[in-house]
Amino acid sequence: MKDIFIGDVAHHIGKEVNLSGWATHIRDHKKVIFIDLRDSSGVVQLVGDETIRGISPEDVVSVCGIVKKRPEKLINPKLKTGSVEIEVKTCAVISKSEKLPFDMGKEQLELTLPVLLDYRGLTLRHPLVSSIFKVQETVIDAFRSGLKQKKFTEFQSPVIIPETAEGGADVFEVKYFGHKAYLSQSPQFYKQIMVGVFERVFTVNKTLRAEPSVTTRHLAEVTTLDVEFGFIDAWTEVMEVAEDVIKYIIKEVGRLNKGELVLHGASLPKVGGAIPRLKLKEAQEIIFSRSGKDVKGEPDLSPEDEREIGAWVRDEKGSDFVFITHYPVNKRPFYTHEDPKDPGYTLSFDLLGRGMEWCTGGQRIHDLSILLKKARERGINIAKSELYLQAFRYGMPPEGGFSFGSERIIMGILGLKNVREASLFPRDMERVDVRL
Amino acid sequence: MKDIFIGDVAHHIGKEVNLSGWATHIRDHKKVIFIDLRDSSGVVQLVGDETIRGISPEDVVSVCGIVKKRPEKLINPKLKTGSVEIEVKTCAVISKSEKLPFDMGKEQLELTLPVLLDYRGLTLRHPLVSSIFKVQETVIDAFRSGLKQKKFTEFQSPVIIPETAEGGADVFEVKYFGHKAYLSQSPQFYKQIMVGVFERVFTVNKTLRAEPSVTTRHLAEVTTLDVEFGFIDAWTEVMEVAEDVIKYIIKEVGRLNKGELVLHGASLPKVGGAIPRLKLKEAQEIIFSRSGKDVKGEPDLSPEDEREIGAWVRDEKGSDFVFITHYPVNKRPFYTHEDPKDPGYTLSFDLLGRGMEWCTGGQRIHDLSILLKKARERGINIAKSELYLQAFRYGMPPEGGFSFGSERIIMGILGLKNVREASLFPRDMERVDVRL
Repeated sequence: MKDIFIGDVAHHIGKEVNLSGWATHIRDHKKVIFIDLRDSSGVVQLVGDETIRGISPEDVVSVCGIVKKRPEKLINPKLKTGSVEIEVKTCAVISKSEKLPFDMGKEQLELTLPVLLDYRGLTLRHPLVSSIFKVQETVIDAFRSGLKQKKFTEFQSPVIIPETAEGGADVFEVKYFGHKAYLSQSPQFYKQIMVGVFERVFTVNKTLRAEPSVTTRHLAEVTTLDVEFGFIDAWTEVMEVAEDVIKYIIKEVGRLNKGELVLHGASLPKVGGAIPRLKLKEAQEIIFSRSGKDVKGEPDLSPEDEREIGAWVRDEKGSDFVFITHYPVNKRPFYTHEDPKDPGYTLSFDLLGRGMEWCTGGQRIHDLSILLKKARERGINIAKSELYLQAFRYGMPPEGGFSFGSERIIMGILGLKNVREASLFPRDMERVDVRL
Repeated sequence: MKDIFIGDVAHHIGKEVNLSGWATHIRDHKKVIFIDLRDSSGVVQLVGDETIRGISPEDVVSVCGIVKKRPEKLINPKLKTGSVEIEVKTCAVISKSEKLPFDMGKEQLELTLPVLLDYRGLTLRHPLVSSIFKVQETVIDAFRSGLKQKKFTEFQSPVIIPETAEGGADVFEVKYFGHKAYLSQSPQFYKQIMVGVFERVFTVNKTLRAEPSVTTRHLAEVTTLDVEFGFIDAWTEVMEVAEDVIKYIIKEVGRLNKGELVLHGASLPKVGGAIPRLKLKEAQEIIFSRSGKDVKGEPDLSPEDEREIGAWVRDEKGSDFVFITHYPVNKRPFYTHEDPKDPGYTLSFDLLGRGMEWCTGGQRIHDLSILLKKARERGINIAKSELYLQAFRYGMPPEGGFSFGSERIIMGILGLKNVREASLFPRDMERVDVRL
């Protein structure tokens, strides 16, 4: 295993080092050849002559060379290693690449989305693409570590389920040993069960939704970040924890992904003081007064409405985030707690970031008889969800929770145009790795 | 949200505290009533009179009371809070439980496995059960943090795949927007693709196997811990990383789960110096000389063989672990690297812990033409696995990796008799939450 990564090479000026990685940009000036060598930590310029002739893009090479300081005027400020270059002594090609279908050596990868995904095994290596998934790692790590600090326990939620958690139609069916089973759309039921076990829980899952729509915001397979906790004294505590979580995630991305943000020309979302909160009705009033568009009485915000409220909160409150609360009962899942002070409306929220939903949550019904009544009214058969019912049958405290879509967070932070860019191997109606 | 957990109550002697949790063991001595109150952090004894009369097991209660030191002779050494009790001033029942189907107040939960699982929404709350999943959390956290220290990057591998990664038959089929898709049995192809991106990667996944067998060691849904890395100089580096990982996991369980180990009467597996390594042939010779059972020439070890080698390595080497290497080519997946010095055998290993397979791994073929030839010879069509092929087509360094089953680790550490006990919501041929 290598002991020096390219990103650390500037600490070895004047020394001989062994480096290995992929050849990226190659400039052959006859007498002298320059090759950008890339590994997971960065890119450095190799300088050589015959020793590095004949190398092609994406060849895996191992070189031995001297780390030289570059003359002041040749320093490349865009590279972490831009103040040095490697004077190559010996070079070995470990693995030859076939001819590339497009140039991977440019700063921008100017490909259409279908091509970007058709060649995912290659395009993921481009720094502009791989950097997205360094941010993803930070987002998920920060989600975990932020919650651990609040005494939350992580648990593993299943993929295969006996029936749909939310009674929805958009569920994938699995052939299961001669029976029908389904793929989890959400760990909702399981995280509520786990409140009875660990009180405060979170779980990171692939959730699967057979939504027959092709939008820039939806995937068939999403990495969701779920939280649920009991012994709440007020439903607003659920929003408070969601707010702490997203603030911590953003702080960690700011701390650990400076380079990735620069690469994408992205700035961190603004979170000043407390995230503003609006009832759905209030948001609709604001939309009307700003744009003249009358959506009052609608049970939800459209993507356009979300963008309008996102613009308002940025302009008026200096915040990239806003909570929208009190969606009508019929627009939220049956287990959502009704507002005793405002019947017909729920103790639920969406958290919008930069004008798009990142998170949804609320207080849940913890009284079994009310839960059963609400399910019945909505025509949902939860009789088979026996383990879920047990959680309420045998003593459940007041509780609530929320769920982030990790790809939405990444898309929002980096300003990506399509949520598919925020998934390593995006699945949708038309694609599972390859086009269907 | 509560600010004092039961586990911390001994730090508040003489003070008034608010505690909430579930009533567990109840002893009504007419004039005085004792109730064990449980939350996620521990159990404490409540002492009261009329204020706590009428409470039933699993009722969720909130009490206000004074933390009192117990007389020396009444200290319960089994409880973290055994030196104190709570003199209850006021008590409120937050949520009433129905009558329990069995006693949850005993130290042991003497139920058959089917009943344990039929009532999973309740039985998970028992400390002997919930403790298993505190250990699971530590195992997975340690897997992550140990690898991060070695510059590995975590990535998210998909659940839905276009075809089986290992050409096996035991794969679940999904109805996917009018097409056939499958559930991932392993992130193998994706982690190899990611070696081209981040060089050193790991991923935690639910993997699904439609194995039509009901054993104490197999689940249909497993939480697997996968590692893959490039630029290896020798295939034995793969074993070295696997060894470091399991040693770190065990160290962390020892550090963080002392109470859980005591509860299960479990001792940490012994890992002294380097984990002994045996070729399959050597292991078979040892089995023959110890037991007289002749399994020489068999392509694999049976569970009984694994137990015998586990006993040998414990007796002879004082180790609970042993690597078995050099399985025959036909017994390992097509992408496994053949040993150039020992044709017909592979650069692959199983890691046995306490006489059971915990991990499997090895060096992979990184040369595309050899990979295609091996797949063809085995009748495996990888032409459709286009992204996987791209990883090799465009420059791949020598690489290898391994995969742990997290439930096997937990089962092994805690000495559980059935792997189903190590899964929160175990799935098998006969059960998805409820019996099929």
